[in-house]
Amino acid sequence: MRTTTGWQATGPMALRRTTLERRDLRPDDIAVQVGHCGVCHTDLHALRDHDQHTSAPLVPGHEFTGVVTAIGPEVSVFSVGDRVAVGNIVDSCGVCAMCEAGQENFCHSFPTLTYGGTDRRDGSTTLGGYSREYVVRDAFAYPLPSGLDPAAAAPLLCAGVTVWEPLRSLGVGPGSRVAVAGLGGLGHLAVKMAVALGATTTVISRTRDKHRDARRLGAHDLIDSTDTRQMAAARDTFDVVLDTIPAAHDLAPYLRSVAMDGTLSLLGYLGPLTVEAMDLLVGRKKLSSAGSAGRPATAEMLRFCAGNGIVADVEVLPSAQVLTALDRLRRDDVRYRFVLDLSDLD
Amino acid sequence: MRTTTGWQATGPMALRRTTLERRDLRPDDIAVQVGHCGVCHTDLHALRDHDQHTSAPLVPGHEFTGVVTAIGPEVSVFSVGDRVAVGNIVDSCGVCAMCEAGQENFCHSFPTLTYGGTDRRDGSTTLGGYSREYVVRDAFAYPLPSGLDPAAAAPLLCAGVTVWEPLRSLGVGPGSRVAVAGLGGLGHLAVKMAVALGATTTVISRTRDKHRDARRLGAHDLIDSTDTRQMAAARDTFDVVLDTIPAAHDLAPYLRSVAMDGTLSLLGYLGPLTVEAMDLLVGRKKLSSAGSAGRPATAEMLRFCAGNGIVADVEVLPSAQVLTALDRLRRDDVRYRFVLDLSDLD
Repeated sequence: MRTTTGWQATGPMALRRTTLERRDLRPDDIAVQVGHCGVCHTDLHALRDHDQHTSAPLVPGHEFTGVVTAIGPEVSVFSVGDRVAVGNIVDSCGVCAMCEAGQENFCHSFPTLTYGGTDRRDGSTTLGGYSREYVVRDAFAYPLPSGLDPAAAAPLLCAGVTVWEPLRSLGVGPGSRVAVAGLGGLGHLAVKMAVALGATTTVISRTRDKHRDARRLGAHDLIDSTDTRQMAAARDTFDVVLDTIPAAHDLAPYLRSVAMDGTLSLLGYLGPLTVEAMDLLVGRKKLSSAGSAGRPATAEMLRFCAGNGIVADVEVLPSAQVLTALDRLRRDDVRYRFVLDLSDLD
Repeated sequence: MRTTTGWQATGPMALRRTTLERRDLRPDDIAVQVGHCGVCHTDLHALRDHDQHTSAPLVPGHEFTGVVTAIGPEVSVFSVGDRVAVGNIVDSCGVCAMCEAGQENFCHSFPTLTYGGTDRRDGSTTLGGYSREYVVRDAFAYPLPSGLDPAAAAPLLCAGVTVWEPLRSLGVGPGSRVAVAGLGGLGHLAVKMAVALGATTTVISRTRDKHRDARRLGAHDLIDSTDTRQMAAARDTFDVVLDTIPAAHDLAPYLRSVAMDGTLSLLGYLGPLTVEAMDLLVGRKKLSSAGSAGRPATAEMLRFCAGNGIVADVEVLPSAQVLTALDRLRRDDVRYRFVLDLSDLD
């Protein structure tokens, strides 16, 4: 086995710097020296729920960039020294209809998650990117296009693809009317991407002091979600509403803002959803949800971001400050994504 | 005022034959001698909830056919003697974006319902088609195409358009894989229309003795919804699932049967709907709902049915047996739609 250093959970919201084992390289593996790893709401949820006695080992982190340091004998697409990016899935069955369609995220036998997943060959629990080295199948690493800053690009691999997938599958382009509800890690990337796709883009947020940011990010319009008159005026207005609010909330006001034949896509809160049938019926509206993406869409998103100069707005902290980052994320005190610099683990 | 005879509610599930007033013809009105009126679940719900002391006057019935007996001076599209059909809306504002788009059913100031609605000019409560005469704006009556039996065509005007609207707006055509959950008034018309549109059509029903009927209606395949193995085998299979089940039920098994990028459209039960975000997310599935349609879609549906010989399977009863029909409908004892013959009101 290889060894590296990383941040492993020791209880709810507790992490310890420790030595981790990584597998020896399989023929199609690459070893990545992790430079930067984004801090995602999923990490927060996983750490909150962690029980040292009953949970599987937990090292969070599923949006990271780094440099290839070693390759297996069958790897042809990467060389040592290449800049790469890895997202929230690291393997899939490869043979089901979803994998064949390039939607490995919907693999019928479930994709292998970057952390907390079960390795398909040795059955071990995968350990994430809050560590100095990650070993991954070459098929689930992506070349990091030149021009993209490796710290600011890390969040593209989870937050980015999560908003890219619905923007693309719902056909957003020039002339589309898009609203982004919630301006956080997902939301701010959704605004940048929707604008770059040519959509007229509106931010719906309850946080008034984020409105200036929304303009800077490229949004054409703003709605204060706590202002019922503004919300009423937005009725039947948007072809696509991307709801990135990361907690349970009333969907009705957002559904009412969807235009005829449009879609409310839920990205932030992935629990049970309740809507009134009449709020869907009137205007033939649709409800959908998204998170993650397959390999082709992930690669496409990285190319699009490189071509349009899109990266996340990040605050980079040494990885030793990971708990500060998580606590501030919990309090919505970040504009707009924390990224850990893992070089302090050397 | 004109007078006619009809069935008016006198309490919960109680109807009395009585004289009703109809307005004198406005310039754009037609008078229709109602020949046949379908019995819809909506009628059942309205009658159950009726309170003689607090409710507005109630004469149910919103899918009927008949013959024009008089026309206002500005009516040009109908003549006395024409066969016509009327559905569940009889007026709308005519100037909002929805009305201008031919979606009068989504009129921003709400369409006038055929019964229990409020007339836009005199403020009176509209009284429905369980009566011998109905007076309606010419724009909300449709020529009944020759070749369509007037009794069997009556249910097309509510049950028919309710299933036609999602079939069309979701793009069902040759090669589409459609499932119809629930085989009743809506479901049996959905099967006929989906088959005529060229879709491979499957019926999902818990009632095994309806399976023979499903084949006769044209269905290519059958699934017993109580057989978990059959339901599991149908996972990710259908581009469109039309759920016509008229009561609250678990949506998860039906959502799981939707294919990648497909839609579950809820037509039968229009209350609060709860789904798990993950059941939408995995496979980029969509949830929608439908009921009623605008004037263009209604006219298109009637032409399609005439061209393809589609009418409802009906059991025709004299209108004096309306309570028997409602009671048997409640017990799901009809194959597949009751139609009242109003000629006994003469």
